[in-house]
Amino acid sequence: MLSAAARSRLCVVLVGARNPQNIGAVARAMQDFGFGDLRVVNGFGVPFEAAQMEAKSAVGAGEVMRAARLFAELAPAIADCERVVGTTAIGGRGLQHPVHSLQSFAPEIVEQLGDEFRDGAAGQGSRVALLFGSEKTGLTNEQLSHCSALVTIPLLAPQGRHLSMNLGQSVAVCLYELTRDGFEGARELPGRTTAGATAGDRERLVDLLLELMQRSGYTRRFPANGREEIVRRLAGQLGETRDEAATWMGILRLLQRELPEQP
Amino acid sequence: MLSAAARSRLCVVLVGARNPQNIGAVARAMQDFGFGDLRVVNGFGVPFEAAQMEAKSAVGAGEVMRAARLFAELAPAIADCERVVGTTAIGGRGLQHPVHSLQSFAPEIVEQLGDEFRDGAAGQGSRVALLFGSEKTGLTNEQLSHCSALVTIPLLAPQGRHLSMNLGQSVAVCLYELTRDGFEGARELPGRTTAGATAGDRERLVDLLLELMQRSGYTRRFPANGREEIVRRLAGQLGETRDEAATWMGILRLLQRELPEQP
Repeated sequence: MLSAAARSRLCVVLVGARNPQNIGAVARAMQDFGFGDLRVVNGFGVPFEAAQMEAKSAVGAGEVMRAARLFAELAPAIADCERVVGTTAIGGRGLQHPVHSLQSFAPEIVEQLGDEFRDGAAGQGSRVALLFGSEKTGLTNEQLSHCSALVTIPLLAPQGRHLSMNLGQSVAVCLYELTRDGFEGARELPGRTTAGATAGDRERLVDLLLELMQRSGYTRRFPANGREEIVRRLAGQLGETRDEAATWMGILRLLQRELPEQP
Repeated sequence: MLSAAARSRLCVVLVGARNPQNIGAVARAMQDFGFGDLRVVNGFGVPFEAAQMEAKSAVGAGEVMRAARLFAELAPAIADCERVVGTTAIGGRGLQHPVHSLQSFAPEIVEQLGDEFRDGAAGQGSRVALLFGSEKTGLTNEQLSHCSALVTIPLLAPQGRHLSMNLGQSVAVCLYELTRDGFEGARELPGRTTAGATAGDRERLVDLLLELMQRSGYTRRFPANGREEIVRRLAGQLGETRDEAATWMGILRLLQRELPEQP
């Protein structure tokens, strides 16, 4: 997992974005994934200022948008960055750089950003700029020449179709990939507070279910399904949590009570 | 990598989306990642029709939007799906299901969708619905009760801040994860030979179970457990495979027949 310090070393740089809503959507994605350094390169200040105006009411984008900086040129926007990574759609253009898939290159970016927990010292790590071009054209060849590496989000649409992702979606996918790994081991997230049913609960459910299957005549009609391992597998489905298992027990007990005795 | 056939078995279901632009952004993300089955559940047709109008000019979203279907209710929208997976922000709500991180649960979804290349036969796999709630509220408890599993995109914003991702960005991140090359660290899942129960089977189990709970007097004694979302969750546990669901159906039908009429 990227530490907060490592995340603070990533700069998202939007080059030539023209739509204030897109800039706001990028800010929101950054806030969602815990990143804060947004830089907008645009000869015209208009979309940036409009995005800042909108951010006052935008959901969750406010802080990132307020701290965002506007640059007229790309070079000064990335002057303090030790690594510059461009994003590109794989298109017809003859790219000079090799293009890495986002997922194959992400570990290298994470490595560059550093991890204070692993390195044992805060402040280790390099500043990395992640560049996104304008929605219409992507990064130009001149802009790409500032980059030391290029990444692309592999898309799957039919061959020959020109693809370009929505700007906010591209940024969200990139930031998701960069923060993805630390969560991989975590099978379950907070939200589950209830214990699972015990093996003892299970056996009582097996007994009850088998009795109901016998008394309703089910096992007489379908003897193969009355085998113990089948009944145990079926009863094993009742109640993921202990509370739910108790509810099932209550239901089956009442059915047991109300069902007439077999002749 | 998911094959085209496997991708065709994934349904993206937007429940209560109100903003035509968001619906269009979802359609575009689907087209980018090679998915095509979009279903919109909304009592009001207006945003859907507006999105279809807009799609005529929208970048890359046209085909998916034209093939999209509108439903007034959730149940019929997912009736043909064998697995229903809900997406949720981890919030204050006491969720009954465990919530898996997207990255930890994706291999299970991929496994369900099937992979003709690995299985050696096209057409293997189950239809999986991936549900997204409205931007304002997410999925309601009633809507969550239709789900057999919940996933969340782990977000990293400061503690205590309420987070909800932009709808198009959420869908893009989920589809990226599902098509992401390789699954490093993914556990090997057992091969699946039997088809899962469909949501339509599920609804019949819900109806039967509720009737049994009522006729046995259970819901009179424990009215809180008779709520539709509770009954749906309980019935959702019956039958992991279609065969098992059919067995449960047989058992419940015989209990229904043998149980005396309530006075």
